[in-house]
Amino acid sequence: MTMHLATRMQSLRASDIREILRITQRPSVISFAGGLPAAETFPVEELKAIAGAMLEAEGAQALQYSTTEGHPPLREWIAGRMRRQGAAVSADEILVTSGSQQGLDLVVKAFLEPGDEVLCESPTYLGFIQAAQVFEPRFVEVATDDEGMRIEALEERLAGCRRPRLIYVVPDFQNPSGRRWSVPRRQGLLEVACRHGLPVLEDAPYAEVRFAGEALPSLKALDTHGQVIQLGTFSKIFCPGLRLAWIAAPEELLHRFVILKQATDLHTATFSQMLLVAYLARYDIDDAIERIREVYRRRRDAMIAALEREMPAGVRFTRPDGGLFVWVELPEGVDARALLARCLEREVAFVPGDCFFPSGGHQNTLRLNFSNMPEERIAEGERITEGVARMAGALRTLLAEAREGCKPVPAP
Amino acid sequence: MTMHLATRMQSLRASDIREILRITQRPSVISFAGGLPAAETFPVEELKAIAGAMLEAEGAQALQYSTTEGHPPLREWIAGRMRRQGAAVSADEILVTSGSQQGLDLVVKAFLEPGDEVLCESPTYLGFIQAAQVFEPRFVEVATDDEGMRIEALEERLAGCRRPRLIYVVPDFQNPSGRRWSVPRRQGLLEVACRHGLPVLEDAPYAEVRFAGEALPSLKALDTHGQVIQLGTFSKIFCPGLRLAWIAAPEELLHRFVILKQATDLHTATFSQMLLVAYLARYDIDDAIERIREVYRRRRDAMIAALEREMPAGVRFTRPDGGLFVWVELPEGVDARALLARCLEREVAFVPGDCFFPSGGHQNTLRLNFSNMPEERIAEGERITEGVARMAGALRTLLAEAREGCKPVPAP
Repeated sequence: MTMHLATRMQSLRASDIREILRITQRPSVISFAGGLPAAETFPVEELKAIAGAMLEAEGAQALQYSTTEGHPPLREWIAGRMRRQGAAVSADEILVTSGSQQGLDLVVKAFLEPGDEVLCESPTYLGFIQAAQVFEPRFVEVATDDEGMRIEALEERLAGCRRPRLIYVVPDFQNPSGRRWSVPRRQGLLEVACRHGLPVLEDAPYAEVRFAGEALPSLKALDTHGQVIQLGTFSKIFCPGLRLAWIAAPEELLHRFVILKQATDLHTATFSQMLLVAYLARYDIDDAIERIREVYRRRRDAMIAALEREMPAGVRFTRPDGGLFVWVELPEGVDARALLARCLEREVAFVPGDCFFPSGGHQNTLRLNFSNMPEERIAEGERITEGVARMAGALRTLLAEAREGCKPVPAP
Repeated sequence: MTMHLATRMQSLRASDIREILRITQRPSVISFAGGLPAAETFPVEELKAIAGAMLEAEGAQALQYSTTEGHPPLREWIAGRMRRQGAAVSADEILVTSGSQQGLDLVVKAFLEPGDEVLCESPTYLGFIQAAQVFEPRFVEVATDDEGMRIEALEERLAGCRRPRLIYVVPDFQNPSGRRWSVPRRQGLLEVACRHGLPVLEDAPYAEVRFAGEALPSLKALDTHGQVIQLGTFSKIFCPGLRLAWIAAPEELLHRFVILKQATDLHTATFSQMLLVAYLARYDIDDAIERIREVYRRRRDAMIAALEREMPAGVRFTRPDGGLFVWVELPEGVDARALLARCLEREVAFVPGDCFFPSGGHQNTLRLNFSNMPEERIAEGERITEGVARMAGALRTLLAEAREGCKPVPAP
């Protein structure tokens, strides 16, 4: 039968990454494509130790419906930690969400209508593009450099907007670029947003996954006008499989997100929330975060060393001090999708960079993930080194063919 | 600061029920207001017995990101059970959702645009009204009687529609009415829907919570044209706190819901899904369902007996053979909200029926929940009896005052 779907369905497609990830499920493939945290860092033993006791003590509550806002002790804990990190937030300003993706969904749903303008970094996080697309806005990309969004570029783009409604940014170790914003850029963004009465959506999943340098103040901490909505998550500092994250926003605005969440999925899993609270009561999450940083620092080091050694001249890449990703720019004219096809033949994968630009283009860019090296026969460092070497080999072949004007040989 | 919110935010309010539930949190209040399952039936001991072993065997996977569609063994199990219940469904036609409320959200998001018409029973489920409202449709209520939606009324209402996009129904022990549709009405609905090329959203949370009579075929089982999208859930037959439910739909349509879910919350908690699969491997869920039926049957019996004994003439109510709710019609002209104010003084609560009509009206109706009697000093049956007696007392006072033309005395 023919059914009539809403217009919003026309622009939606399954993510490219999804399709690439399907291929990379073969264990022989070295994948830099996903964005999975390292499973070796997950608190399996800790949760084993406490799950039974939590059910024993509070099972009837943990398995029951609960409030949309979230489990009160968890909201308290999150607000307390944010305060210690410099943001003046109370538990009433925290909404527990089913992962940060839900935070994105609730915020764009509250602000965006078809044709409204949403501003973002160029490149930006793919999950944000997907969440926002459902509400049919016009994406306005703002140029970024190693210090973050360029403030004069933001002003210029804003001048061309008719109905700007929201600015979305990932100031700490951004996905996909790995870049971190300088403090002056953070202040500059807030000043512009404030002047234009524009809400700022700060997505901060990687702020605590920092291997070098000092913590910088979040936009939420710098905000003195109630302008910033911050998304935080336990996915990168605890584990993603319980789907626990949060929105921090001024109370009046938070109440709107609560109403939307009630209509969206009633509440986040009570069991997940109470298990996390039991974990936080017994263990020091900062110890766990330190262990995660160690693992990721080692993998980042292996990847940067391999890129420096293996990649031909003309390839540029970021050297992130945190997060999960390295951003690579190939020489002008080289298509990352052509390189990907060659790399898949050699059983190594990554994500082409054009996915991260709402308006497309930038075909010579790509994203590499270094956090999730499956535990295989060869050690993680060697596996990263081997993967980068294969990529570099594929790239050299591609460059040589281009010089000789050869047509690429199709895969067998 | 002033922020510009999307138009859809204007019509959204926190549910009335939410506000009433806040009052009923005092343990002295006898509450027929909520819709919570009986916590005494939750599988606390069973989950305690298996949680550690599941983490031991599959912890790294249970705490990791997983696919949007859902954990494959769980999709298989659901499809198998649906097939045994008469619906020809494969695992590829199942999407695991974070509760049925998310199923509602995904389906209305796929079909409804502002001004589109969505048809539903009168009364209908409040959670559906909330989910749909976000997408600003026009609700078209279709008259129902004890056999379900009246088919000729459906035809009439459809004739007046310009852009009908979806029909939403709860054929088994509906929330709020407790009614179950007859088979001829089920067939009649499918025939009309098919003729008009209209998708049918069948919400079936209570189909298995049946204390009397035989199972009737679901709309999904009767559907021969790929017209029916069915929502199922573990909330009423297992527990709600893990947030586990599903959408069953033809594969092409399901793929659209998968894309929307990816943008909405990536995937349902891996841990919850794997814990349920471990439970299903070790225990017989049909035994658990039988125990739930026993408890609810007892409570339904207590409530019906009390209503028959206590209520003054002119009060009508349903006698449900399943589900969690009894629907009450007060004598014409009696306002259930006035009765509620009096009942709250006497520490007994319910939900006024007008919440369940998208176009309002029906002020003389109310919904009683009998599944969730908190474990208190007095036994559950006595507590139900006591609550109904207090309600009847309040109603008699209200009726007497109306006869005497008295103004109600304000609460102290």
